[in-house]
Amino acid sequence: MSQGKRIVLAARPVGEPKPSDFRIEEFAVPTPGAGEVLLRTIWLSLDPYMRGRMNNAKSYAAPVPIGGVMEGETVSEVVASSNPDFRAGDIVRTRAGWLTHAISNGKGLIKVDPALAPISTSIGVLGMPGMTAYTGLLDIGKPQPGETVVVAGASGAVGSAVGQIAKIKGARAVGIAGGTDKCDYVTKQLGFDACLDHRDPDFAARLKDACPKGIDVYFENVGGAVFEAVYPLLNAFARVPVCGLIAHYNDAEAKPPKWAASLMSAILTKRLTFRGFIVSDFAARHGDFLRDMSQWVREGKVKYKESVTEGLDHAPAAFMGLLKGANFGKQLVRVGPDKA
Amino acid sequence: MSQGKRIVLAARPVGEPKPSDFRIEEFAVPTPGAGEVLLRTIWLSLDPYMRGRMNNAKSYAAPVPIGGVMEGETVSEVVASSNPDFRAGDIVRTRAGWLTHAISNGKGLIKVDPALAPISTSIGVLGMPGMTAYTGLLDIGKPQPGETVVVAGASGAVGSAVGQIAKIKGARAVGIAGGTDKCDYVTKQLGFDACLDHRDPDFAARLKDACPKGIDVYFENVGGAVFEAVYPLLNAFARVPVCGLIAHYNDAEAKPPKWAASLMSAILTKRLTFRGFIVSDFAARHGDFLRDMSQWVREGKVKYKESVTEGLDHAPAAFMGLLKGANFGKQLVRVGPDKA
Repeated sequence: MSQGKRIVLAARPVGEPKPSDFRIEEFAVPTPGAGEVLLRTIWLSLDPYMRGRMNNAKSYAAPVPIGGVMEGETVSEVVASSNPDFRAGDIVRTRAGWLTHAISNGKGLIKVDPALAPISTSIGVLGMPGMTAYTGLLDIGKPQPGETVVVAGASGAVGSAVGQIAKIKGARAVGIAGGTDKCDYVTKQLGFDACLDHRDPDFAARLKDACPKGIDVYFENVGGAVFEAVYPLLNAFARVPVCGLIAHYNDAEAKPPKWAASLMSAILTKRLTFRGFIVSDFAARHGDFLRDMSQWVREGKVKYKESVTEGLDHAPAAFMGLLKGANFGKQLVRVGPDKA
Repeated sequence: MSQGKRIVLAARPVGEPKPSDFRIEEFAVPTPGAGEVLLRTIWLSLDPYMRGRMNNAKSYAAPVPIGGVMEGETVSEVVASSNPDFRAGDIVRTRAGWLTHAISNGKGLIKVDPALAPISTSIGVLGMPGMTAYTGLLDIGKPQPGETVVVAGASGAVGSAVGQIAKIKGARAVGIAGGTDKCDYVTKQLGFDACLDHRDPDFAARLKDACPKGIDVYFENVGGAVFEAVYPLLNAFARVPVCGLIAHYNDAEAKPPKWAASLMSAILTKRLTFRGFIVSDFAARHGDFLRDMSQWVREGKVKYKESVTEGLDHAPAAFMGLLKGANFGKQLVRVGPDKA
């Protein structure tokens, strides 16, 4: 019987996660029982929301228990099957977690057709991050031609799709990213109208210059200093889909932000809309998303970039880097080869 | 030539308005020129939004200039007309302001049919306050059967309509008002399921008891301690139409509220919607509003109460009282008799 590996939550992080908050364990790869399949992980997706699952806080999803396998979406191969719906060699998308092998009863496995697109896109631009961008921007942000859309993490999985979809809809796309390389990529490769480096000491002034007609849609996935710079620029009737707050995920203690004193008054007088969402709230839009997004990817209107870390052992380091913006593109971990 | 009276803004209030912020002036009642009408004010509506117009702050409407007539909606009689669209004796709704007589070129005058309903309702339950309740609750709050709707100022012009419309839509209505008399009226006469006195030292605990299944819609027209008590009770997917913040209108300086540190995080994890609005944003819904609301009033499903102050001279005192909740029902000033 061969050995598998998994990464479990060793301790709840206080502030930034550190290596000792994770533990690598080995386990005997099990044999599937009746109705079950054995999965081998090919790709593991790393996403900012995972930081929230490490806390013992009430949220839309239960926390990972201490000693539990870290959660995450994977692209996996069925290596053995006692389930009539799957056979060895099938590629599936599922939430197997941070591990090399998993047993499944078939529930929640979604078959991926390797002939259509690289299988990694099923957890990227054609998966949860792409659909987060699509639904949050279109169903809440509702960008109109000529309006200005601002998004941070503009070279990342969600932000890159937000800006490119905004352009498709005739809006102006202004991105925010960390560093010159990422900003160049966002404007030159992805076609955003502008991209600002949030590390620039004059960031707020530069954002204002880049949005001469104010901001109509701010796709919020970061919070912190970026929101502070965005806030005074919001136009009347601006929409703010709230998708994530990565700048705050490591906050041990929440401090009242500077802008908070006037927020409700701004919502009233500017008639702003703030609406939080997670992608599963828009499950009914999955068909629309897949149709539009796969067409846009085929036509080259939506481009994507992947940042690949080799080997499950390095997932914790890659995740800690992701929270600091060290990734450049959608963060993936190559857990196993495409073909075993 | 007879004398008219008007009330002008003498000084911009710092904090609560005081009598010296207003000045009564007399003026010679003018004669209408070609195309003009002379209006005699019967009813003046006093509304919390007027406090905002007294500040020199950027908002959705321009401030009243120092020395300018205080703005406000009126029910007026056409006493002389050189405009073919109006004749003497016509009753109109308009924004003549805090004065006894005004000249108009006919623009913005809306005829009121005295046979349909008491003419004061055209600036009350069938006017701007009623439509504010109708559109904010139905178009933003979207209450579903069995959900819990909370509104403050529950005996007032907007709040009383919000709760009664919520009941019509099958929701539970929980009101907040100042004092036992108002709370009794709200539950016994208006049919709310519960009404809490915000002056009760245990207000927050009582609100929690009155909302055992949490809050799905909070119609925000007050802010302050009421929002603080509401905030932790908001359910996942709760909607907060932001219509007014009367508790803060007299704030000379905005302090960061306690709940602000976690607001964006709550919006995200609970997928809350906050949306500011003013009634004119929903102008397209005026026909629907008039049809539904006049039917509900006729059927006795929506009741209303008026708080009448006699004489224009007392409008400043009535307005200062309104900001402190001294009114009981829609605050009106009887400026002149129904028939001159």
